[in-house]
Amino acid sequence: MINVGVLGATGAVGQRFVELLADHPWFRLTTLAASDRSEGKPYGKIVNWRLDTPFPEKIAKVKVTATSPKSMKDVDLVFSALPAEIATDVEKEFADAGIAVCSNASSHRMVSDVPLVVPEVNPEHLGLIDVQKDKGSGGFIVTNPNCSTIMMVTALAPLRKFSFSDVRVATMQAISGAGFAGVAAMAIYDNVIPYIGKEEEKMETETLKIMGTLKGNRVIDAPFHVSASCHRVPVIDGHTMAVWVDIDEPLGTIKKAFADYKPPIKGLPTQPAESVHFFESEPDRPQPRLDRMRGRGMTVSVGRLREGVRFVAMGHNTIRGAAGASVLNAELIVKKKYL
Amino acid sequence: MINVGVLGATGAVGQRFVELLADHPWFRLTTLAASDRSEGKPYGKIVNWRLDTPFPEKIAKVKVTATSPKSMKDVDLVFSALPAEIATDVEKEFADAGIAVCSNASSHRMVSDVPLVVPEVNPEHLGLIDVQKDKGSGGFIVTNPNCSTIMMVTALAPLRKFSFSDVRVATMQAISGAGFAGVAAMAIYDNVIPYIGKEEEKMETETLKIMGTLKGNRVIDAPFHVSASCHRVPVIDGHTMAVWVDIDEPLGTIKKAFADYKPPIKGLPTQPAESVHFFESEPDRPQPRLDRMRGRGMTVSVGRLREGVRFVAMGHNTIRGAAGASVLNAELIVKKKYL
Amino acid sequence: MINVGVLGATGAVGQRFVELLADHPWFRLTTLAASDRSEGKPYGKIVNWRLDTPFPEKIAKVKVTATSPKSMKDVDLVFSALPAEIATDVEKEFADAGIAVCSNASSHRMVSDVPLVVPEVNPEHLGLIDVQKDKGSGGFIVTNPNCSTIMMVTALAPLRKFSFSDVRVATMQAISGAGFAGVAAMAIYDNVIPYIGKEEEKMETETLKIMGTLKGNRVIDAPFHVSASCHRVPVIDGHTMAVWVDIDEPLGTIKKAFADYKPPIKGLPTQPAESVHFFESEPDRPQPRLDRMRGRGMTVSVGRLREGVRFVAMGHNTIRGAAGASVLNAELIVKKKYL
Amino acid sequence: MINVGVLGATGAVGQRFVELLADHPWFRLTTLAASDRSEGKPYGKIVNWRLDTPFPEKIAKVKVTATSPKSMKDVDLVFSALPAEIATDVEKEFADAGIAVCSNASSHRMVSDVPLVVPEVNPEHLGLIDVQKDKGSGGFIVTNPNCSTIMMVTALAPLRKFSFSDVRVATMQAISGAGFAGVAAMAIYDNVIPYIGKEEEKMETETLKIMGTLKGNRVIDAPFHVSASCHRVPVIDGHTMAVWVDIDEPLGTIKKAFADYKPPIKGLPTQPAESVHFFESEPDRPQPRLDRMRGRGMTVSVGRLREGVRFVAMGHNTIRGAAGASVLNAELIVKKKYL
Repeated sequence: MINVGVLGATGAVGQRFVELLADHPWFRLTTLAASDRSEGKPYGKIVNWRLDTPFPEKIAKVKVTATSPKSMKDVDLVFSALPAEIATDVEKEFADAGIAVCSNASSHRMVSDVPLVVPEVNPEHLGLIDVQKDKGSGGFIVTNPNCSTIMMVTALAPLRKFSFSDVRVATMQAISGAGFAGVAAMAIYDNVIPYIGKEEEKMETETLKIMGTLKGNRVIDAPFHVSASCHRVPVIDGHTMAVWVDIDEPLGTIKKAFADYKPPIKGLPTQPAESVHFFESEPDRPQPRLDRMRGRGMTVSVGRLREGVRFVAMGHNTIRGAAGASVLNAELIVKKKYL
Repeated sequence: MINVGVLGATGAVGQRFVELLADHPWFRLTTLAASDRSEGKPYGKIVNWRLDTPFPEKIAKVKVTATSPKSMKDVDLVFSALPAEIATDVEKEFADAGIAVCSNASSHRMVSDVPLVVPEVNPEHLGLIDVQKDKGSGGFIVTNPNCSTIMMVTALAPLRKFSFSDVRVATMQAISGAGFAGVAAMAIYDNVIPYIGKEEEKMETETLKIMGTLKGNRVIDAPFHVSASCHRVPVIDGHTMAVWVDIDEPLGTIKKAFADYKPPIKGLPTQPAESVHFFESEPDRPQPRLDRMRGRGMTVSVGRLREGVRFVAMGHNTIRGAAGASVLNAELIVKKKYL
Repeated sequence: MINVGVLGATGAVGQRFVELLADHPWFRLTTLAASDRSEGKPYGKIVNWRLDTPFPEKIAKVKVTATSPKSMKDVDLVFSALPAEIATDVEKEFADAGIAVCSNASSHRMVSDVPLVVPEVNPEHLGLIDVQKDKGSGGFIVTNPNCSTIMMVTALAPLRKFSFSDVRVATMQAISGAGFAGVAAMAIYDNVIPYIGKEEEKMETETLKIMGTLKGNRVIDAPFHVSASCHRVPVIDGHTMAVWVDIDEPLGTIKKAFADYKPPIKGLPTQPAESVHFFESEPDRPQPRLDRMRGRGMTVSVGRLREGVRFVAMGHNTIRGAAGASVLNAELIVKKKYL
Repeated sequence: MINVGVLGATGAVGQRFVELLADHPWFRLTTLAASDRSEGKPYGKIVNWRLDTPFPEKIAKVKVTATSPKSMKDVDLVFSALPAEIATDVEKEFADAGIAVCSNASSHRMVSDVPLVVPEVNPEHLGLIDVQKDKGSGGFIVTNPNCSTIMMVTALAPLRKFSFSDVRVATMQAISGAGFAGVAAMAIYDNVIPYIGKEEEKMETETLKIMGTLKGNRVIDAPFHVSASCHRVPVIDGHTMAVWVDIDEPLGTIKKAFADYKPPIKGLPTQPAESVHFFESEPDRPQPRLDRMRGRGMTVSVGRLREGVRFVAMGHNTIRGAAGASVLNAELIVKKKYL
């Protein structure tokens, strides 16, 4: 068992980390860091548990520590649910202290020696860990992409063998993506907000790195172009997206690629039975409320494949798209013996 | 004043017709047709008024008639809010009886001598009325497009002067588009349904007819391609859509085209001050709840213009996208003296 | 293992029955009955699974049968999710054929020799089974109350030892209570509907029977009065209700009654660890989205206890309030050896 | 025309004030106060207009001033949409400077010489203005009740002639009652929050003052008891409430009291044609989405009158329940020549 901690343990993504790690077969959740005023108090007393799954009572008495490597001496790996503006320095500090950091924050995603990984898509990018290790203390940072990007690249994974140059995506994103207090009810109820700050840029750049090629010390961007239009809709969890990709193959070939898809990795505890679930014949799926918990929230669902090539992809944004993504990365790190 | 009637007067679109016609300056609403079992009863007794505007009391005592030309002898023009499967025959019957039909149904939209018109986009297509008149009784059918198509073609109107060949659109459509009982709350609440029957086909074909060229007795389709992905979201009124159009011009030129846009017609009572409202600097507009009632529901709002060329368009689906569209067509018919 | 069947297996409550019975330790789900046109087809092919839990694949191949005792010869007990108008005759037919019927329908609830039971509240009312058996074939009907009534009587159970004569309740009920298609999105979105047909009457009469006293062949109604006001709100699952009960005791005594409550039965597989969860100090609980799945949907949550005596109760209407209630009754029937 | 100003002009209630005053026949809106950083800027530039009615362009250029009597020298009356914690001192300061204050804040409502008024219920309480004037500068404060209280006392007004001692009310309140940012979407979507801070206390005390009797320098509380249970539901605008009142009269008598009700005042511009609209035969009304805009948001709707005596009341919380209430009070002040 590897001792792990969570940074930013009381927020929306932090609570998902706690939920996923409470009974993890490989990780023992020993340390939870939150804001200074919570230091020393039991987690169960200070967290305002907002998930609809029961609070994991075994974690209730874990004492909350400050967000510093000194306070977390017994851990080998931390999961970061910190906001980007804080993550930039803090995650660096942990890595410098010899700790492995699996981060959901955007701060380091595009740094050249930091792997930006979805295990089913680019597990080999973990090779960048060696570049980081060569420079320093033995600690390192591994990041997962933005929640929308994760759904798209996972849905594109079965199509990588085909040639394409142009990807368009229009998202319909859930309110939980902005955190518990991020969207006012008055703003989104009976409404669509056709703007999410920096989301389109993230989808357009992160995708190219993830689907790019590791060459020596860095990743060569994938040779296609992404154009995104991002929208918030009144859905609690689950990002849905309409995708176009200019693959010049018969629809039957594409269909077969989705139906026969096998991810390049297996055996990770958080990995679902199906990384991509393909709705071949249902006319109106995937739907966030019905399909987001598929594979305990880790499966990306794809459906409505049509000429174009067009399809709809959907996944749980705070599980597959955030906390679950980081945990899956950590499992891959362990399996590949980087720890 | 021209005497008019409404077919299908008790449904979602029918009620909008009644609302728009109750105080119309050119039309006198004298006749309301609904299902047989309502015949002879006052409209106020049988309608289950579901709009959030007050019921127009002056219409309350209008007697409901059967849906046949014989029952509507004093009217020169009828508005049809009939479902497509009924509209096919009934609208033909009214036209054959010498009555002008302004229809919101899809039945006759793609018939070669039936104008499919958005007054700001293709007013000249009313010329097809003469083709119909030549064949028959003096009556004729004029249709307006599907609600999503209307928003898109109105938003594209300012861009017609540019050359383009490829339009992509992902819609986020309101539940009222399916009628009062069309979508179960259990189906759409906290959800997105990525499918609306025949909607994509309508957007892909109707657009080409509307933006096509009237040549003699028929319309030559516009020379571009439309690829649509249609989705239902939990919004009451207002269809939002992300549009891509491959115009190779600087963004400033496109911006100016939207900002300077003047529609080719004016002076129609139901026409809004702005047919297209352009949000040039607001980062997060249009939004259905805030913008759908712009221009009393008749303005199409456009915003988030970005490289790509990408933008977001939005309009009220049961006003601009249905009843208001038919009324505007009727006004154009009167103004152009086809009646 | 006891062989059981479900009547009305494709509806909202029917699907919950299938979910709860798929892996039941005492019951083997062998037979599913639905409308005639589904007869002979595998359940997995004809059901439109609308729950957000995965479809139980082991049930997929079970053949759907007609709704008649002849088609269900191998079962000893059926669960009925039939609509009331059908249930009246069909459930009688099954009982006459010697089969035990655990029904969620309202048809027989108020019949004098039919037990109306919530196991934690009035398990002794199962004694009425003997009255039925004496008359007939060995089969019998046991019913559970209306979904709102269940939450209220379960919440009142800890207070039975106090004297009271007047109960008022205002409900805020979920849309799933009306079935998958029961409430149109246009009707309930951004809205409250202050009326649910026959719901108030059910709460006012069923409560008195459940909390009444079994005397010989019948139940003497409880000696208090219930006044209900029932409302539908835009919530998917979970009925919330504000309750007043005129108990003249110090608040501390009431609080202790809730905190110390132990139900009179235990050891039933579907019974939750806490039949009543009492929020003693949280100011804003229970809430349907956060608390409905407590005890796998079988716990009734109570909070906001104030002078008056006032409190708020909440429970999952299609689990604790419907399918789970029937299953719990069936377990009690088995445990008490009525089968 | 009387010059007026608005304090707190950019918030949810402040924007409603601007909307209601932009074209008022008696008041000229000359001054808008907001936070210091907005001082000197045109209102149109700094307000984030969130109402679904068009922004009143004539107000766009009004310069925003500081919230102090010195900055508002030309006004005779101000409307206060300030939060309670600020209103306490600021409203006093304005009154001391000789300015009339019509406040929607709770700060001074229960002060003995401050009228707490709903014009249709207790217009004579304005007599307390003289008590204030005797003490001071000619300025004075008049308050309107909490939004929920307004709906209830207006609905009770037709029943005042009957004797009763016990009122129970369970509210289902809209999210706009908490301001634009007051409720997070994650908190209320698919949910009920059974708690609104201080709301129950306000309903229980304010009601007694409003329905009390002015005797000399103060109001004697009405001789009945109110017990409230307040809940937030996912509705944008419109507070719905189930009310019980122990009137011992035949239902027909109560019905007649509602149907024949005439308020004691008339001729105020903002007063609706019907202060109370009574749904005598509709089984499922009032409903917030359908009925909140009745009387331009100023009518309180009552329906579902049943034995008990029970009924449902509903009104628009930010119009009748806030800004409209203050404006109506100001109109009464003018009509009664207190200004």
